[in-house]
Amino acid sequence: MSTPNFLSDFRSMSAIGATAGGGVDRQAGTIADGQTRHWFRGLVEGHGFEVHYDDVGNQFALLETVPGAPYIAVGSHLDSQPLGGRFDGAYGVLAGAHAALRLRDLLNSGGAEPAFNIVVINWFNEEGCRFKPSMMGSSVFTGKIPAQQALETTDPNGVTVETALNALGTRGDYRLDVAAYLEIHIEQGRSLEDNGLSIGLVESTWGANKYEFIVHGEQAHTGATVIADRHDALLGAAELVVAARDIAHQFSTEEHMVITSCGEFTVFPNSPVVVASRVNLLVDLRSTDPEVLAAADAELHRRVAAIEASANVRIERGAEHIWAAKAYDEAGMTLAAASADALGLSHGVVRTLAGHDSTNMKDMVPTIMLFVPSVDGISHNERELTSDEDMLAGVDLLTELLGRVVQGEFVAP
Amino acid sequence: MSTPNFLSDFRSMSAIGATAGGGVDRQAGTIADGQTRHWFRGLVEGHGFEVHYDDVGNQFALLETVPGAPYIAVGSHLDSQPLGGRFDGAYGVLAGAHAALRLRDLLNSGGAEPAFNIVVINWFNEEGCRFKPSMMGSSVFTGKIPAQQALETTDPNGVTVETALNALGTRGDYRLDVAAYLEIHIEQGRSLEDNGLSIGLVESTWGANKYEFIVHGEQAHTGATVIADRHDALLGAAELVVAARDIAHQFSTEEHMVITSCGEFTVFPNSPVVVASRVNLLVDLRSTDPEVLAAADAELHRRVAAIEASANVRIERGAEHIWAAKAYDEAGMTLAAASADALGLSHGVVRTLAGHDSTNMKDMVPTIMLFVPSVDGISHNERELTSDEDMLAGVDLLTELLGRVVQGEFVAP
Repeated sequence: MSTPNFLSDFRSMSAIGATAGGGVDRQAGTIADGQTRHWFRGLVEGHGFEVHYDDVGNQFALLETVPGAPYIAVGSHLDSQPLGGRFDGAYGVLAGAHAALRLRDLLNSGGAEPAFNIVVINWFNEEGCRFKPSMMGSSVFTGKIPAQQALETTDPNGVTVETALNALGTRGDYRLDVAAYLEIHIEQGRSLEDNGLSIGLVESTWGANKYEFIVHGEQAHTGATVIADRHDALLGAAELVVAARDIAHQFSTEEHMVITSCGEFTVFPNSPVVVASRVNLLVDLRSTDPEVLAAADAELHRRVAAIEASANVRIERGAEHIWAAKAYDEAGMTLAAASADALGLSHGVVRTLAGHDSTNMKDMVPTIMLFVPSVDGISHNERELTSDEDMLAGVDLLTELLGRVVQGEFVAP
Repeated sequence: MSTPNFLSDFRSMSAIGATAGGGVDRQAGTIADGQTRHWFRGLVEGHGFEVHYDDVGNQFALLETVPGAPYIAVGSHLDSQPLGGRFDGAYGVLAGAHAALRLRDLLNSGGAEPAFNIVVINWFNEEGCRFKPSMMGSSVFTGKIPAQQALETTDPNGVTVETALNALGTRGDYRLDVAAYLEIHIEQGRSLEDNGLSIGLVESTWGANKYEFIVHGEQAHTGATVIADRHDALLGAAELVVAARDIAHQFSTEEHMVITSCGEFTVFPNSPVVVASRVNLLVDLRSTDPEVLAAADAELHRRVAAIEASANVRIERGAEHIWAAKAYDEAGMTLAAASADALGLSHGVVRTLAGHDSTNMKDMVPTIMLFVPSVDGISHNERELTSDEDMLAGVDLLTELLGRVVQGEFVAP
């Protein structure tokens, strides 16, 4: 068995689904996602892990060093956005595997006595672009959505999650309880870089209210239909996009930022000479403060009603996903800070704007979330970048922290 | 040979590409368009017409009654919008064929002496939804765009016009000169219905400026990227849609209406958690008055520059199509009015907001354009409707008018 080399493994992994622009396209359940999952299986089995899948395709790489002991989980996700970066998610899964391996060598060489086994988890479909919602695998694992619902979810071509996972051969019936969860991820923001820090200790998630709106108009000839007769779904949806940005400006203060986004916007029938009959769009609002978020949310819904009148359309509210702002485990942050200090790594407290699988896991078990810097905060973009040095510092910290956790410093065995 | 029955032929034709909502989907060059072309060929060949195609798939049904004499053309188009109505275009082609047949019977029974032959034309791709631009076949016929350019045009899947036409077997090398052009079409507006008239005599086209814009942003994570760092192509494009509608209100007066539209709007990469990197959209402005149109156009381009700054995006201008407002032949309108009076059909003067193949033809030969009423002005919609009575009145008028034209009352033989 060759000595594991994190950077060389990371480069091998990044070749799968690689795009011309230096990123990857490994949307959940696609061939490229399957290739990455099989590549990861091969890598860790080569180092003595045992690999299993649960029924929604979560991938568990088990390293049992204390027969019969409970498991500490460390994980993230190998799927990506279309034209996504090669660090988002994939870094954390590989870092988890390397931390586990280094820890095993350390334990084998005597000294410490572990109280837990280790499982590295690759959560299915964290990104939620091909199959909605995002964080699907960890949502099922933590009981937030039923497995059957996830399996029946279809992509835009009508392919179900079940079909996609079966085609890749990455489904099983494995079940596992875990005692605690650790995740390391790129920041996808610029606060660490701006403050010259190596490590972010994630204090809390932002609250996020995500809505699907369906704007209903009436199909008509763009040339021949006078303005007064139009029910233009595209106009209504465009006004909603503009309103969402207004709300971000209106409700952001020195203390509490509000971020709003529209990431998906699909026009029907989308012909050059036809007034749109329907637009489906997603709008989300995020804030660190629940009261500010509630006020921004109320304003959004007031604006929706106003746009129905001004644009002469009907706006239906579809699916919604509400995540309350929630704190991570305080003892976990203290332990992570002590680990970073022991290694001489600079660190600071951050909040995560994006959702992560740890957002789900922290509601079930004690959870620690770490960030490493992202160059210019760029993410969900082929130009996403974290330096080798920062990646390796993250693996060092994760190894140190995981070592403490498996020896019972975070949760009792 | 059975007696031709317009309504029964119209119902047969409307079954091709029929949609659940009572419309048709016969986009240019599709299987359904091909089926309609072959159906039409069978119909008119059964009545003694000779059918030919030119190299861009315009379909010519020739009825030669005066060997060697020049041709009067009557036509429109059999292609439709996706989920379009069954009257737009198809009514005019079938009306032309039936008018020609009735006229032949009239001439055969003695009396009048025709000076011209008749050709009924089904222009390829008037709608321009699958292949852009619209009015493609008549644009090539009138020398406005080169045949080669039309043939190389691709649909969103990369299929060329040439490939699509060859697959349907509806291309040829026929060439024909015509001496005059007549077209009858549904109004696609409500002025005839509002004024209780049977027939519209089209006085002029509206001027239309059509632009493709490409809004360039920067792909980013919707959650993690703060507002100040965003270059959101969707926001920029949404502001442009809203601005276009503003301009319609701003420049419309009692005398001269301005109509603006955005009919196609495509977002990349269109993922729920990704700030859009690019939006392609079409914006068009139309007005009866060239000066008002020029002023509205200048305002649009001023707004584009302002949006580049406000939304932090770059807006590129792609293809454009400019049609100047232009009058139809006055003598033709007088002749059509006299024909309607002879039949006791009420008529009024209208302008056409939409483009038609006659918009091209009138720049080449003397042209007469007629409208029949559209219920509620609804068009490019499955609910498009013209009553049987109004359709039959239109065929009567077209027969009367075509009879006068082939006897030399409009252009000299």
